[in-house]
Amino acid sequence: MIKPRTPAGVMELLPREQIAFQRMLDVIRRNYERFGFLPVETPVFELSDVLLTKSGGETERQVYFVQSTGALANAAAEGEGAGVPELALRFDLTVPLARYVAEHEHELSFPFRRYQMQRVYRGERAQRGRFREFYQCDIDVIGKDSLSIRYDAEILAVIHAVFSELGIGGFAVQLNNRKLMRGFFEAQGVSDAQQQALVLREVDKIDKRGADYVRETLAGPGFGLPADAVQRILDFVEVRSDSHADALARIDHVLAEAGETAGEALRTGAAELRDVLELVRALGVPESAYRLNFSIARGLDYYTGTVYETTLTDHPQIGSICSGGRYEDLASHYTKSKLPGVGISIGLTRLFFQLRDAGLIDGIGESSVQAMVALMDDASLDDALDLARRLRAGGINTEVQMEPRKLGRQFQYAAKAGVRFVVLAGDDERARGVVAVKDLLREQQFEVARNECAEALRVELEQTRALAGR
Amino acid sequence: MIKPRTPAGVMELLPREQIAFQRMLDVIRRNYERFGFLPVETPVFELSDVLLTKSGGETERQVYFVQSTGALANAAAEGEGAGVPELALRFDLTVPLARYVAEHEHELSFPFRRYQMQRVYRGERAQRGRFREFYQCDIDVIGKDSLSIRYDAEILAVIHAVFSELGIGGFAVQLNNRKLMRGFFEAQGVSDAQQQALVLREVDKIDKRGADYVRETLAGPGFGLPADAVQRILDFVEVRSDSHADALARIDHVLAEAGETAGEALRTGAAELRDVLELVRALGVPESAYRLNFSIARGLDYYTGTVYETTLTDHPQIGSICSGGRYEDLASHYTKSKLPGVGISIGLTRLFFQLRDAGLIDGIGESSVQAMVALMDDASLDDALDLARRLRAGGINTEVQMEPRKLGRQFQYAAKAGVRFVVLAGDDERARGVVAVKDLLREQQFEVARNECAEALRVELEQTRALAGR
Repeated sequence: MIKPRTPAGVMELLPREQIAFQRMLDVIRRNYERFGFLPVETPVFELSDVLLTKSGGETERQVYFVQSTGALANAAAEGEGAGVPELALRFDLTVPLARYVAEHEHELSFPFRRYQMQRVYRGERAQRGRFREFYQCDIDVIGKDSLSIRYDAEILAVIHAVFSELGIGGFAVQLNNRKLMRGFFEAQGVSDAQQQALVLREVDKIDKRGADYVRETLAGPGFGLPADAVQRILDFVEVRSDSHADALARIDHVLAEAGETAGEALRTGAAELRDVLELVRALGVPESAYRLNFSIARGLDYYTGTVYETTLTDHPQIGSICSGGRYEDLASHYTKSKLPGVGISIGLTRLFFQLRDAGLIDGIGESSVQAMVALMDDASLDDALDLARRLRAGGINTEVQMEPRKLGRQFQYAAKAGVRFVVLAGDDERARGVVAVKDLLREQQFEVARNECAEALRVELEQTRALAGR
Repeated sequence: MIKPRTPAGVMELLPREQIAFQRMLDVIRRNYERFGFLPVETPVFELSDVLLTKSGGETERQVYFVQSTGALANAAAEGEGAGVPELALRFDLTVPLARYVAEHEHELSFPFRRYQMQRVYRGERAQRGRFREFYQCDIDVIGKDSLSIRYDAEILAVIHAVFSELGIGGFAVQLNNRKLMRGFFEAQGVSDAQQQALVLREVDKIDKRGADYVRETLAGPGFGLPADAVQRILDFVEVRSDSHADALARIDHVLAEAGETAGEALRTGAAELRDVLELVRALGVPESAYRLNFSIARGLDYYTGTVYETTLTDHPQIGSICSGGRYEDLASHYTKSKLPGVGISIGLTRLFFQLRDAGLIDGIGESSVQAMVALMDDASLDDALDLARRLRAGGINTEVQMEPRKLGRQFQYAAKAGVRFVVLAGDDERARGVVAVKDLLREQQFEVARNECAEALRVELEQTRALAGR
């Protein structure tokens, strides 16, 4: 006898939780499709030489390699000289996207807009809240040679649509632009990208160590920045706009302050940010859903323009739940074509875990099974199956009790399973051509004509959905 | 520069094909949920000792093992003594189900009805049409201690619902019962299970080698069966019912022929088959969709009662597209509880591959993107974004052209992408509060009030769906 158990670092759900998780996946997918993104799925494993072109260091140590029994035996026989296995599990969806676009370049239309929602794998240290297998839900728009800044606005509108419908509370997309950021630092005399990264790392400590510590460090021997430059940097990274107009004014202010010293990066970044803001508004995104946040940097060596992070207003401790940005070239390891892009990723496994922890998963109460046909006795079985058939044909997800049990136990089962409607027909109901319906949500009971039952339940379900604003 | 490519034995699709594949997944899932099955997902990898309890031989050689970079380095250092890696990729969904049910036994309600649609992994020899990564779409009902035969009928009704809605042509579920089969063979003097398997293997050659060859073999020295027993076996495995009444008559005939020699297995099997047939009819499955086929055996050592295979009427060469049956005990390696079950599996990757090969994938023409808003010039961008926003809010999946191009090229793009509606508004339309819609499917153009556009397109889409019988 072997103890049934899962490996460390995976999230396996019970059915009720799985239904809630699946609903979130469905909402995300529906909104990705609503904006015209096309589905892509890639194999869970890639050839190791293809997957590991650009990753090094930390990422490479976290890669899972895959070997068939035969390959494993060969490797063991060869000992240390066996080298890297042929296959490895994807550790994100970006490298597979790069490979996919480069491989199928001539069969795709550009700008290529794809969504991809699959699990990825990382050999993380085992730790609560860290996952070795987790869902990423990505969208990207990939251009050939160039890609309009307008897509950066559309991506933000998609984020807004997704999190509005997910209904997990207020949220805001934090927006910044790497060019603006770079231009600003240049104007403060910090031109080197590495130096900028070091300054940002110090600035990041402001919450923990306080402004004075950061100010002293940046003015100290390691950085040697003039006190007024340090102050301007601290002021800059604290910028958070509180309305659309304020966001535009903040950008103007940065430009005005730089004055003569404003270089090309600063001007371009400011123009891009302005464009994105105006188009986001044209796309109907309410101004409460986005704000400038000049402290957002996100991987200095990958993103080159717009960067996004998304936070829950009432749960800032969860951190960013949807991040991404604009990059110069997606697939330089696989093709000579220049493929700029913009995209975001939702790490749904981690998000679900944190929402559940915070008691914010409200869907747990409701099953995907909408009705249960109760069974009074064996003689009623054919009748119960006929009822179930009618409900299913009418679009109601229906379970039927296949063996008679005490009615009380059948109701208990439905309640525990989160099934909303219990449908039953005794001799009396059958004689009158009706069925009795018990609505466990509203705690009401009603009768309805047998051939109108599915329609009646559909109306009830739609009303509830409308009331919930879904 | 590294050549972008996928490993052998995986099926990666272009977006249009992926949409068709996704539609099939959606139909399967919708019907599984319609019958009240609950979703389960398990991790792609299991602990090797958990996964490999019962598989041996062929299956074990096909298993993919998973190692992180660190584990791999350790294994290399230890050489041949390294042993079996800790993790392995699932090779089906049945072993993970057994582990899941045993692990969460006390948190599940029985009968436990679950569906699971995930990819599985086998280190198959690379060959056209053989996949190392493929989708399985499974349902199972698991009982505790016992499970009513009635679920065997429900499973058949689910198969019928799935393949009716998939719309890939006529199909029939081939039905048999292992107890009936065993009882029949016992009555012919072949009582040993292994011997029965050998007889069946010979009988399987009937199409290739002819009835005379099989007859001689079974009557020959290896088997030594009497000539009349051989004839009865050949008659038995050729049974195919052609109606509901015929199916019942065939069962009666087998019982009548056995007469006094009919043992318990034969009687029980006949009774089970009869129950399943009657309930399948009560569930509203048309009699053209199922038939008895006494040659169906499916893995003699696993299934113990009902067995199913499903074939496409016009494409018998594709073989079974959905198979399964009844088993005694799901998880005897993990728990002392007796967990009988019944289930089926659709191997969707292989099915999709074969349907595409046979030219039967009709969904390739239609995108998940339903409308494209054309862009006349930069000045119209805000207006185009507003139009797109209205369409999306009205439930229409909408792409918007972000940069103005020649209108002809925009139409070409939509046609190539399979987008049905192109929506545009020039100065004239805007002044009149209308938009122009070009329906690329019906090759018609019409005007509609700006704020009624989404509703108009929705009606068109619903009409087309209704006409197509979906």
